[in-house]
Amino acid sequence: MAAHVIGIDFGTLSGRAVVVRVSDGAEVGSAVHEYAHGAVERTLPASGRSLPPNWALQVPQDWRDVLREAVPKALAVAAVPASDVVGIGTDFTACTVLPTLADGTPLCEVDGLADRPHAYPKLWKHHAAQGQADRINAVAAARGEPWLRRYGGRISSEWQFAKGLQLLDEDPELYDRAERWIEAADWIVWELCGAETRNVCTAGYKGIHQDGSYPSRDYLAALDPRFAGFVDKLRHPLSALGGRAGSLTARAAALTGLPEGIAVAVGNVDAHVTAPAARAVEPGQLVAIMGTSTCHVLSSDGLAEVPGMCGVVADGIVSGLWGYEAGQSGVGDIFAWFAETSVPASYVAAAGGRDLHEYLSELAAAQPVGAHGLVALDWHSGNRSVLVDHALSGVILGQTLATRPEDQYRALVEATAFGTRMIVETFESAGVPVTEVVAAGGLLKNDFVMQVYADVLRRPIAVIGSAQGPALGSAIHAAVAAGHYPDVRAAAAVMGSRGPDVYRPDPERADAYDPIYADYRELHDHFGRGASNVLHRLHARRSTQGGRT
Amino acid sequence: MAAHVIGIDFGTLSGRAVVVRVSDGAEVGSAVHEYAHGAVERTLPASGRSLPPNWALQVPQDWRDVLREAVPKALAVAAVPASDVVGIGTDFTACTVLPTLADGTPLCEVDGLADRPHAYPKLWKHHAAQGQADRINAVAAARGEPWLRRYGGRISSEWQFAKGLQLLDEDPELYDRAERWIEAADWIVWELCGAETRNVCTAGYKGIHQDGSYPSRDYLAALDPRFAGFVDKLRHPLSALGGRAGSLTARAAALTGLPEGIAVAVGNVDAHVTAPAARAVEPGQLVAIMGTSTCHVLSSDGLAEVPGMCGVVADGIVSGLWGYEAGQSGVGDIFAWFAETSVPASYVAAAGGRDLHEYLSELAAAQPVGAHGLVALDWHSGNRSVLVDHALSGVILGQTLATRPEDQYRALVEATAFGTRMIVETFESAGVPVTEVVAAGGLLKNDFVMQVYADVLRRPIAVIGSAQGPALGSAIHAAVAAGHYPDVRAAAAVMGSRGPDVYRPDPERADAYDPIYADYRELHDHFGRGASNVLHRLHARRSTQGGRT
Repeated sequence: MAAHVIGIDFGTLSGRAVVVRVSDGAEVGSAVHEYAHGAVERTLPASGRSLPPNWALQVPQDWRDVLREAVPKALAVAAVPASDVVGIGTDFTACTVLPTLADGTPLCEVDGLADRPHAYPKLWKHHAAQGQADRINAVAAARGEPWLRRYGGRISSEWQFAKGLQLLDEDPELYDRAERWIEAADWIVWELCGAETRNVCTAGYKGIHQDGSYPSRDYLAALDPRFAGFVDKLRHPLSALGGRAGSLTARAAALTGLPEGIAVAVGNVDAHVTAPAARAVEPGQLVAIMGTSTCHVLSSDGLAEVPGMCGVVADGIVSGLWGYEAGQSGVGDIFAWFAETSVPASYVAAAGGRDLHEYLSELAAAQPVGAHGLVALDWHSGNRSVLVDHALSGVILGQTLATRPEDQYRALVEATAFGTRMIVETFESAGVPVTEVVAAGGLLKNDFVMQVYADVLRRPIAVIGSAQGPALGSAIHAAVAAGHYPDVRAAAAVMGSRGPDVYRPDPERADAYDPIYADYRELHDHFGRGASNVLHRLHARRSTQGGRT
Repeated sequence: MAAHVIGIDFGTLSGRAVVVRVSDGAEVGSAVHEYAHGAVERTLPASGRSLPPNWALQVPQDWRDVLREAVPKALAVAAVPASDVVGIGTDFTACTVLPTLADGTPLCEVDGLADRPHAYPKLWKHHAAQGQADRINAVAAARGEPWLRRYGGRISSEWQFAKGLQLLDEDPELYDRAERWIEAADWIVWELCGAETRNVCTAGYKGIHQDGSYPSRDYLAALDPRFAGFVDKLRHPLSALGGRAGSLTARAAALTGLPEGIAVAVGNVDAHVTAPAARAVEPGQLVAIMGTSTCHVLSSDGLAEVPGMCGVVADGIVSGLWGYEAGQSGVGDIFAWFAETSVPASYVAAAGGRDLHEYLSELAAAQPVGAHGLVALDWHSGNRSVLVDHALSGVILGQTLATRPEDQYRALVEATAFGTRMIVETFESAGVPVTEVVAAGGLLKNDFVMQVYADVLRRPIAVIGSAQGPALGSAIHAAVAAGHYPDVRAAAAVMGSRGPDVYRPDPERADAYDPIYADYRELHDHFGRGASNVLHRLHARRSTQGGRT
């Protein structure tokens, strides 16, 4: 018998289970299960009730279905007997958070509550709690709350407290019925091992848990007296990453077809768990998970308060190091938006059935740096790091009558690379060294994009060897939880994976990018740091005039 | 017999002849002749010799062919006997200028010179003399030349002196052989009446003729000692608009089929001649000729030096008033660029065979003002007024993943309307009142565009009644030259034409546009007046990196 583990990555629209050999990290089989309800953004599934703008929910049963469907399928594909599986690990989008009863039952599954929007899990991209986030930040700043700087000075509307405060504001009765307010990352582990656990990662990054405690009762009461006890819905001993949350219950064993009693790993976040999968858990190794958006995770020996970062959390990526997280709200989805809305039929015809991104990339790659005469800001979905401002929007300068789609496509790709450089430089100037950049995620398949990043960053970019990094990372955690490795760093060294290629910067192109990056910075600071508030005014107009936000 | 006149409008790609009844301005027939060589921008017709970037030439024989082809055809369509024609008037693009022998023979028609690019007429949009224009402006500013302020402080690279200086710089031998340097507007009149004339309009707007003289010998010598005598190639008594340049020669009569000896009107410029056609020659009446670009002409009782205008010229539109000219380098061509390069196949399909502009306009028109959350600068072809800077380029802010083609289309339309408002406000704040706005040109056919302009300007917009305004204006000049009216103002009152519709601003939309216009102004000043030079850096990069300029 060869020991195997299961890693499951719960994404926005589907869940993926991967069967991984413990001894060497080989991925021997996988299966994907699409959520029946996907991201619930328009109407509630039960009643068809309409949701307000910017809402995004999920349905817990969809997650259970991944356990039931994808796990046995992956095992079948791998031709690995269930009896060879020694542990299971999971990772989730975050902050995806839900209200439950004390026994973990989601409120949306409680009789009579299926028609209450606030009873459902709020998906990470639920963006209807900005007003609450604004209050959270204003009050924290006014009171000088010390934890605020750990989050770059800004708590996101996506996180636990903003979403929880929205619940209180808009459905106080349901707020009272929510005995627990729990990350989906921890809820799924509860489903597997039958006991509530809370992982340090989401507690730190999404739950404002710092230096052993949550925000104070006084602070919460200042937001709303009824919110003073909010932390009671969160409070629970925190579990270290790589730890064993418990053992697979008989019920979960029946659901998945796995042996009862095997190790269940502590919950994790998709981005953070990719670091061990990419064999990049040492101080200074930055992993960029580049997809529709990009998330950057970086471990470091030291604590620094880096302006505009998503957060710094002790043991937040691997135990023993400070884990830093940063992000770019829009990357691949900007390219997709452009390809969908801004490329004429003649290009589709010329592409001759090839993927439009491939065709545009080929045309764009043929240009010398700067020849298009454009510079863009990559803020179509706002700016997560380093400005933490979701009211920002896209900007492009330099269009002439000779500007072609591939020029603008290239400018958008470059803009996202400049955004990454801004993040890397912000880390370094705050005293957090970045010694290596490792890329993961869907954009890896685009050589042109990767080469632009290497040239703009003036750094080699190594790549993960797995196409299913988060699931592999979860499997690594499962192997540790099952006792096959002493810790995540040791497991990552064996089971983590690197691709053969490294994208290396071309010195000439890198030199040519420097002045364009300087232009990007000028625009970034002008429109992003208050010299001009025009983007905020445009955002306000879009909202008040009933435009698409 | 009913007296008729012929008006001929020489455009960029074709010439149009219109037969007009003198008594009431009725347009009874017209014909268009496409130039065989169009705008010569890539290679010389004779030899296939390549032209450098930004060149644009024409071929004089193409203009003669309009006389030979379009005039008889228009008469035939009108069923008007040639013997009823009492005069002929012409207008031309400007500054379109050519070197000739003393007898008017174009140098490109002189034996052995057909392969010399500088022997050809330089079309208005020849943009390869920017270096020369920069010298002209720098030296004029340094010497405090008084005429500079009459041109908004900036002489354009499109005009006679810049193009003449380029000829000297690049082909000094040909410069010496050029006995005359003459606007095509005057050259075509020479062809018709056999005698050189020079009209006050092009001499003033394009030839720096002010207060009775051209720039001084000293000034010209400061540009280049060999350039000191340049004005000798221009000097000639100037003729007032509406005057009789002479009589149709036997040769021209044979060419056109018109009676020998009829009146030939003094030459004119397409934009300026549209004012009488639109019955808008009184002080304060601004005519906007809205097409691929927009030209604004406005007469006034008083002289003011308006920053960033193309020029102010005594008697420059009609005798007895100061004529002001302003312009927007790109308008309809920006919309065309967008429709061609930035609209996906799904829109073309949804348009179902309708014109894409019509379809985009319909979608855009359905939006409340500001709902798209965008603001753009209309500088894709640079900014003629009020910044006089062709190194500027387009800017758009506010894009999100929800931004659709009609949103951007609308933002571009609005940007050009804001550009017009900037010009109108600049006139008024310099003490030149604008009491009425009358629109002419190809964009009249788009109701949506016209309504945006009315709303943005907060003014009613009247429209010309003729689809061939310049040719009608030339015909009006012909009627005056033939003695049927005492002057252009009197002829315009009878023969000029207004459409039945007036676009009236909607107060609510106008109010909603004010803050967006304020945003436009902020960006206009930030990127256009030196606070940020990023657009100049982009222009320089486009040029040095071999991009499309």
